[in-house]
Amino acid sequence: VVNLSSCFLQGILERLDAGEIVIGDGGFVFALEKRGYVKAGPWTPEATVEHPEAVRQLHREFLRAGSNVLQTFTFYASEDKLENRGNYVAEKISCQKVNEAACDIAREVANEGDALVAGGVSQTPSYLSCKDKAEVKAAFRKQLDVFMKKNVDFLIAEYFEHVEEAVWAVEVLKESGKPVAATMCIGPEGDMHGVPPGQCAVQLVKAGASIVGVNCHFDPDTSLETVRLMKEGLQAAKLKAHLMSQPLAFHTPDCGKQGFIDLPEFPFALEPRIVTRWDIQKYARKAYDLGIRFIGGCCGFEPYHVRAIAEELAPERGFLPEASEKHGSWGDNLSMHTKPWVRARARKEYWENLKPASGRPYCPSMSKPDGWGVTKGAKELMQQKEATSEQQLKELFQKKKF
Amino acid sequence: VVNLSSCFLQGILERLDAGEIVIGDGGFVFALEKRGYVKAGPWTPEATVEHPEAVRQLHREFLRAGSNVLQTFTFYASEDKLENRGNYVAEKISCQKVNEAACDIAREVANEGDALVAGGVSQTPSYLSCKDKAEVKAAFRKQLDVFMKKNVDFLIAEYFEHVEEAVWAVEVLKESGKPVAATMCIGPEGDMHGVPPGQCAVQLVKAGASIVGVNCHFDPDTSLETVRLMKEGLQAAKLKAHLMSQPLAFHTPDCGKQGFIDLPEFPFALEPRIVTRWDIQKYARKAYDLGIRFIGGCCGFEPYHVRAIAEELAPERGFLPEASEKHGSWGDNLSMHTKPWVRARARKEYWENLKPASGRPYCPSMSKPDGWGVTKGAKELMQQKEATSEQQLKELFQKKKF
Amino acid sequence: VVNLSSCFLQGILERLDAGEIVIGDGGFVFALEKRGYVKAGPWTPEATVEHPEAVRQLHREFLRAGSNVLQTFTFYASEDKLENRGNYVAEKISCQKVNEAACDIAREVANEGDALVAGGVSQTPSYLSCKDKAEVKAAFRKQLDVFMKKNVDFLIAEYFEHVEEAVWAVEVLKESGKPVAATMCIGPEGDMHGVPPGQCAVQLVKAGASIVGVNCHFDPDTSLETVRLMKEGLQAAKLKAHLMSQPLAFHTPDCGKQGFIDLPEFPFALEPRIVTRWDIQKYARKAYDLGIRFIGGCCGFEPYHVRAIAEELAPERGFLPEASEKHGSWGDNLSMHTKPWVRARARKEYWENLKPASGRPYCPSMSKPDGWGVTKGAKELMQQKEATSEQQLKELFQKKKF
Amino acid sequence: VVNLSSCFLQGILERLDAGEIVIGDGGFVFALEKRGYVKAGPWTPEATVEHPEAVRQLHREFLRAGSNVLQTFTFYASEDKLENRGNYVAEKISCQKVNEAACDIAREVANEGDALVAGGVSQTPSYLSCKDKAEVKAAFRKQLDVFMKKNVDFLIAEYFEHVEEAVWAVEVLKESGKPVAATMCIGPEGDMHGVPPGQCAVQLVKAGASIVGVNCHFDPDTSLETVRLMKEGLQAAKLKAHLMSQPLAFHTPDCGKQGFIDLPEFPFALEPRIVTRWDIQKYARKAYDLGIRFIGGCCGFEPYHVRAIAEELAPERGFLPEASEKHGSWGDNLSMHTKPWVRARARKEYWENLKPASGRPYCPSMSKPDGWGVTKGAKELMQQKEATSEQQLKELFQKKKF
Repeated sequence: VVNLSSCFLQGILERLDAGEIVIGDGGFVFALEKRGYVKAGPWTPEATVEHPEAVRQLHREFLRAGSNVLQTFTFYASEDKLENRGNYVAEKISCQKVNEAACDIAREVANEGDALVAGGVSQTPSYLSCKDKAEVKAAFRKQLDVFMKKNVDFLIAEYFEHVEEAVWAVEVLKESGKPVAATMCIGPEGDMHGVPPGQCAVQLVKAGASIVGVNCHFDPDTSLETVRLMKEGLQAAKLKAHLMSQPLAFHTPDCGKQGFIDLPEFPFALEPRIVTRWDIQKYARKAYDLGIRFIGGCCGFEPYHVRAIAEELAPERGFLPEASEKHGSWGDNLSMHTKPWVRARARKEYWENLKPASGRPYCPSMSKPDGWGVTKGAKELMQQKEATSEQQLKELFQKKKF
Repeated sequence: VVNLSSCFLQGILERLDAGEIVIGDGGFVFALEKRGYVKAGPWTPEATVEHPEAVRQLHREFLRAGSNVLQTFTFYASEDKLENRGNYVAEKISCQKVNEAACDIAREVANEGDALVAGGVSQTPSYLSCKDKAEVKAAFRKQLDVFMKKNVDFLIAEYFEHVEEAVWAVEVLKESGKPVAATMCIGPEGDMHGVPPGQCAVQLVKAGASIVGVNCHFDPDTSLETVRLMKEGLQAAKLKAHLMSQPLAFHTPDCGKQGFIDLPEFPFALEPRIVTRWDIQKYARKAYDLGIRFIGGCCGFEPYHVRAIAEELAPERGFLPEASEKHGSWGDNLSMHTKPWVRARARKEYWENLKPASGRPYCPSMSKPDGWGVTKGAKELMQQKEATSEQQLKELFQKKKF
Repeated sequence: VVNLSSCFLQGILERLDAGEIVIGDGGFVFALEKRGYVKAGPWTPEATVEHPEAVRQLHREFLRAGSNVLQTFTFYASEDKLENRGNYVAEKISCQKVNEAACDIAREVANEGDALVAGGVSQTPSYLSCKDKAEVKAAFRKQLDVFMKKNVDFLIAEYFEHVEEAVWAVEVLKESGKPVAATMCIGPEGDMHGVPPGQCAVQLVKAGASIVGVNCHFDPDTSLETVRLMKEGLQAAKLKAHLMSQPLAFHTPDCGKQGFIDLPEFPFALEPRIVTRWDIQKYARKAYDLGIRFIGGCCGFEPYHVRAIAEELAPERGFLPEASEKHGSWGDNLSMHTKPWVRARARKEYWENLKPASGRPYCPSMSKPDGWGVTKGAKELMQQKEATSEQQLKELFQKKKF
Repeated sequence: VVNLSSCFLQGILERLDAGEIVIGDGGFVFALEKRGYVKAGPWTPEATVEHPEAVRQLHREFLRAGSNVLQTFTFYASEDKLENRGNYVAEKISCQKVNEAACDIAREVANEGDALVAGGVSQTPSYLSCKDKAEVKAAFRKQLDVFMKKNVDFLIAEYFEHVEEAVWAVEVLKESGKPVAATMCIGPEGDMHGVPPGQCAVQLVKAGASIVGVNCHFDPDTSLETVRLMKEGLQAAKLKAHLMSQPLAFHTPDCGKQGFIDLPEFPFALEPRIVTRWDIQKYARKAYDLGIRFIGGCCGFEPYHVRAIAEELAPERGFLPEASEKHGSWGDNLSMHTKPWVRARARKEYWENLKPASGRPYCPSMSKPDGWGVTKGAKELMQQKEATSEQQLKELFQKKKF
């Protein structure tokens, strides 16, 4: 049943142009935080140097689960970010080393399965602290130099809250001549300056992106709605691009414009929100029906979530991922259970319709997101904290007016 | 701050006798199922042969998180179980090979940090299908032979629903001369024949166990209540033993006598029940206060849960685990976040008191467990399924009367 | 503290024009259904003739709770409605009798406290079954004749889903020369033909209504949002009118365009949604802040909910209602309780911040509304039921296409 | 279908001895608090004098709903209680007047339908403040004198937390020669001195009660469990008595030994816990199956809840109550609704299986009960409040040690 050979003879655009479904991977920072290799808060990827075996293993698991694209673990690996947050790392590790190691590990694992390697850049502190275009672009270019030296297969600009910065990133990445994908971490309300998703998509495509979409910050349903708006924007502008979605694996029906960051549970109490494999099968089907062909995940996605995408779309793709050797479709591996009532769960209707309980009767089902001025208490805390924050942060808030 | 050297010069009993806290590891079958290496349903550990790198990596993560004991991944690795369920494995892998590989991998990683290796046996299909004592003991002895050959540091008999079988296991393991720990997967109502926890503990200690307690099937609170009853039973019988707990990392306030297996969400929709790291800190403290000194976890425990035990008990132990390099105590790594309201989460009171939302307003907070005769529909399904079940299962149900 | 004298020397418009707050009453059909005098489904008010003492008592309770307006219990009392649904009434009661008795009872009680009496009409089966304007207007005129004969103080056209019919009603009521209020049972999405709230308000004022707003179908928050949109529409059109709100006393964050009728709990399992008195105090304050001065309730409102409006706005009004003799502000009557922890509840902060538990851990917190084609099962039921429905209903559905 | 004539030719014991089902009424203090005539906190019944029409109307509604017994509204009407709490009543009303008026009103309404009138006494401040047996009995005797003068049909001692006081009450009431029923407001854990339900029942029957059971403080399920324990106790003691249950109409799965008083929602935010009519039908059936033949309700019960008892047991009783003229069995009155999906709700399976949503996604489904020492914060509040409490209360707490 499992057949991985000869899937990846072609590049990302050849595959998408041919109508193939490309499966992305999951979010590394959350998965590796739980495994003990990434620090929540900074979320920087020095593990590529410190613990390459852990990064390698996670890549392998995603590959085995069905990922056709392995993203280099270079999230927040721009020099300004690593310097800004990196002082907790005992031994100083250079930006270049982190990015190079990330490329090497991703390529090593990709070769085990003929997957593509995508070099990734994400939003920078330089932009948030109002550095000029040249300086921000220089940060992207430093990472790009590594990606070119290591000859990644294509490039992804991801996790941008401001379309302006995303456009700058795409412009830099396009200099390489390689295909560029661009995803923003926005919801249906648009970017932090209020640019709606449709316009964001148009600007990104005009800047050179061949694939556009969203990643992170919102749950699958919300993310698909945002991609739908992007699709509408592109159609209205008579532009063509492939669509991509890499949402959270958390239910966030209650979050505001800035996504799950503002939820009180972020980032250490999101567990009750984790989606099931069946939620992901619904997501994969819905994404496919919407015309999205690059379907992956972001924070919260574990290998079994990626496998769920691959299993849902197996009829269209014609094959199952390797990891399905250890997974029965829709729970059919329960049919041998000694308890009859557990055997009775070995069917699609059961899992499709189950409304899983939280086991937490003292907890609510939704939260009110935090944010500027949400409550008096919060405001006071802010003011108090504000006094101790750095000059750089002050300027940031003065200018950006969150 | 992190200091692992010289912690493990001594054996398990020397350490416990000296009053040290010993931290266990987490459940392998659930963690590796999500990573794509174990099949839910059979839950057998052939991954030790098929994918040693994945098993090794998980051991490493637990070691890094603070585990002082690495259990060989030999759960359900008795010969009868592997044969019974193993027919889905393409290439037949012998029981001996699975157990040997498990020992080798555990030892390799244990040596990286001076942790102890514990060889583990668990309940057998032979017992459930009413084989006699000699035959059941023979199954344990086969695994024990490997453990002796590979010279594990001590032995654990775990995941027993029937104290009779657990006693047989302890008797076999005691033949080795090595220290024996024994945990049952029972709740406060006792074993499947109705033997209360206190009596189970007494029988296990009389059979030769030096450490007794519970693992799996119930959440931390319920499991601690069961251990409390065991402690009472031992005190009443004037017996001495060390206490041990390795509960689920799922909230299960709603499960019945047979634990989480009977919950409708088992095993593929338990996500909303996953406990947070803060829940685990509370568990670790409560376990410690109850006098338990071997504190670990079972299904659902990921490395960050084990780290939470180590962080909660760092004041008593005097050191933090290696993985705490990537974790601030009580979220203090959020104090640098750009958003003031996220920075406001960098404090103990915040996480301790947060009631995390499920993000699932269409789902309940508790479920009614399934089971014999729970509903007419279930009964019918059982009857219907029963007709197609094997002779062995029929006999099982006739005799055991679940 | 209680002073009701000399409050009602003036008519409704004099009072509103002078900036006074006018408190409405609560919904009679729901309250009397629970008391055993109204049949859910038909919801017709023949109790005015059958059990005048029950209707009188409910009026008295609302008066005592602070209502300044007693609406005649003439909801669904048009001749076509009473005939259509009235066949379950043992002894045939004429439309005229029902309406006359309603006026007499309301006046009798109003005189006990100087409250105003408002004659009310609501949407008709004639309109829904596509009768022409003349016929629909004739139905309203029959009720108006009674109101004129009984000399009510002013008139309310309420519970209209279609602004067209509401306009017809206002036109008829205006013929009387008495002040006319008009409320629609719509949400922010507008009427059933898609006319947005702002335009509905404009049409109603142009037709002659001096007071406009919403009643029924949605919870307080949603209703206030709809009135806000009406206010915006009137401002944009440079029209002046007083604003009025009489929402449900049920939480309905999950209902669709047609309101609580489509919720699976309607009408016999809405209990967990009932709002507390503290919810109503928040509603009253919010309504006041929005500029609404005719503040009342609809289905679900019991006398203590109306009292909560009066208590919240007592600072602005300068007096408490009579029923506050039996109610301490913000629970202060608990300060004498024998249990200290109950005494600790005698304060505003406690009740204001309490998140009340449902006591129903097996139930969700939100529902998906039913409606055309919502699920396959529902559709099938519809088709099946459709076959047995009357010709009149068929035509209705053919034309209206819900 | 409705036939009330000739039901009540006999007394309470004749009826129960003959195997008839007797339906009680609902709780007056909660119902009249919502209507504006009773003050929460004191919960005293001076409304019998102040607003007899409101009390009369509520009696009528219960009678119409199917009640065979009208309890005099004399809850907390002992002299010590009225004096203790009565100082908020502008014009001093004597204990005798309150009790006499209560009897007159109940008899007037009972005669409208041949229902029985039961004079009721409940626990006294005298007992709680450690007055001696003679003094406590004197309080009951004062009420009994009125009941005898007014010739009630039988007597109920209800709402006792301490079986000792309940026994004293029964002893006094037995002096009258009239049948005596006795219900305690306890749960399965027993009375406040730790006397288990079975022993309470035995003591009450030995003291002279012909009917025993529980009322108030717990939801139907918990109350039935308590009655079941009482039944077991009586059987073990070879005593015979009729069983009676009058539980709350609130879901309280989360309350502790002292019932709903300790829930944070008591008494002003219990709305989300209100049971539906369908919950009551289940309760009535379960009570009947348990052998209970005096089935009624307490706080939270509205007339439609009592009707639900009568409708559920109509097959056994052979008739429907008068109020069923306005109610279709299991929602069948929805079968004429204009919307097909509402018509689809006109069936038993629908309402029986519905899990009603709370409409409150920001609220939990269970609460932790307050109580002595529950939390540090609560304790501090207690201490602080304690200082301002009266000497009487101090002594109470010193002695009773809640």
